[in-house]
Amino acid sequence: MTKSPLKVCAYQQAVTAGRDANLSAAVAAAHEAADAGARLLLLQELFALPYFCQSIDNAHFELAEPVPGPATKALSAVARARELVIVAPLFEQRPSGVFHNTAAVIDSDGSLAGLYRKMHIPDDPGYYEKYYFTPGDLGFTPIDTAVGRLGVLVCWDQWFPEAARLMALAGADILLYPTAIGWHPPDDDNEQERQREAWITIQRAHAIANALPVISCNRTGFEADPSGALPGIEFWGSSFVCGPQGEILAQAQPNEDTVLVADIDLARAREIRRQWPFFRDRRVDAYADLVRLGRD
Amino acid sequence: MTKSPLKVCAYQQAVTAGRDANLSAAVAAAHEAADAGARLLLLQELFALPYFCQSIDNAHFELAEPVPGPATKALSAVARARELVIVAPLFEQRPSGVFHNTAAVIDSDGSLAGLYRKMHIPDDPGYYEKYYFTPGDLGFTPIDTAVGRLGVLVCWDQWFPEAARLMALAGADILLYPTAIGWHPPDDDNEQERQREAWITIQRAHAIANALPVISCNRTGFEADPSGALPGIEFWGSSFVCGPQGEILAQAQPNEDTVLVADIDLARAREIRRQWPFFRDRRVDAYADLVRLGRD
Repeated sequence: MTKSPLKVCAYQQAVTAGRDANLSAAVAAAHEAADAGARLLLLQELFALPYFCQSIDNAHFELAEPVPGPATKALSAVARARELVIVAPLFEQRPSGVFHNTAAVIDSDGSLAGLYRKMHIPDDPGYYEKYYFTPGDLGFTPIDTAVGRLGVLVCWDQWFPEAARLMALAGADILLYPTAIGWHPPDDDNEQERQREAWITIQRAHAIANALPVISCNRTGFEADPSGALPGIEFWGSSFVCGPQGEILAQAQPNEDTVLVADIDLARAREIRRQWPFFRDRRVDAYADLVRLGRD
Repeated sequence: MTKSPLKVCAYQQAVTAGRDANLSAAVAAAHEAADAGARLLLLQELFALPYFCQSIDNAHFELAEPVPGPATKALSAVARARELVIVAPLFEQRPSGVFHNTAAVIDSDGSLAGLYRKMHIPDDPGYYEKYYFTPGDLGFTPIDTAVGRLGVLVCWDQWFPEAARLMALAGADILLYPTAIGWHPPDDDNEQERQREAWITIQRAHAIANALPVISCNRTGFEADPSGALPGIEFWGSSFVCGPQGEILAQAQPNEDTVLVADIDLARAREIRRQWPFFRDRRVDAYADLVRLGRD
């Protein structure tokens, strides 16, 4: 049983064009997290890269890397040195030449604990992910680590309650959402705030529905569209950690690089699941149509 | 296509021991809602009765009524007179002698549009519903009315994203949650606020995940446990209406009888579903385990 409370960290950063600098910043954040006593570090989606999916350009496939590869090797070293579990989201190229939006989970001994390959792939103006990423083929499978069983999901997955539920049903102790989401600059302030608030609310709701803590890590900073076709994305940061009642434990600002540290109480999560025992009462006899695209 | 915006109403009330007085208050609220231009009225769970499930007492089965019966007849008259759709949650006794926690949906011509029988039944200290209510046998089936296709769910259902999703997949235009939930007086203020906030958050998240407006109606007032075994329930009111991004459009206070009126924009909901097209990307190939109680 994992010790409780567990100190966790999310590192939100504005990336630069130089991936080595971004990786170095993540390694530095890992040390800072460990210095603060954290035993789990969540990095943002595609953490060391600009969000290249703003445009469709096959040169961007050059940004992919194998696992293990340069990013996981550098992070494995710091994970082992500092006994830190690290969730490292990256652009994975498989030996077969298939590309995924993947989170590599590095255990506290530096070994690769497992992979999650993003299952739900968006495709919207500025987020052309269906061009780059084959939908994940590993299912909604949590990954066992020294700090517990991690239900790692990636960005667009956060809008699908099904994903969180499947992780919970498989025994996840924590839900983790590395993310790259931001504002479309022409949208007005009210629309921008509704979007950010929706993003926070639905992830808090996954905590509530499943009585699990949630760690969400979103990049910050403005990134231009290299094609010039779109006005760029203002990533809204706002990374947060919440408890099993959806209560916010710590939250970063929209626009600052932040090593966000919080204590999560896994014993409390188990207690909440007995207090409001939703899992007892699921009507699995009546859920069959959830595997259909529509009931029409 | 339903006219948009649509003015809707939730009526939260503190009930008295006299069900006729509670019913009369609901009829008065229907007139007030219609006077304000509302075309849809949501009443609270078991709207004309004290929340009798605080204790286990077979005398309480006397409170049940058939559908059609006294409550639906009185409400049908005002529905027809004021061209108002009314969602009337009540304690249903079927001719077979089976009892349900049911919402009767009365169309604007006074006819019975359909029933929803609560599918997820709680059973916790002070909420002994499994003793009284057979779980619903009508599934998650929205009900067509003059103002649109209503995805009516009841209270405990609100903690289950599966229920909201199934209503949305069947074409619901609006999700409605009549409720009876409140505070356990010995809990401290922080715990009470976490619970109320969790209740609001998860329902806003159903709006977000499904790009649908939500109307939630919860009773208010303190009700003692007639058995004296428990310290009673302080129902927290806080009924609200939110839009398809989870944005709050109107909200009542915790402790006041309120005829809460809001405009919902069904065209906006359709637009949001195109803007963030979650329904396109559901991984129905990987959701099979949602019909299992656990994946262990």
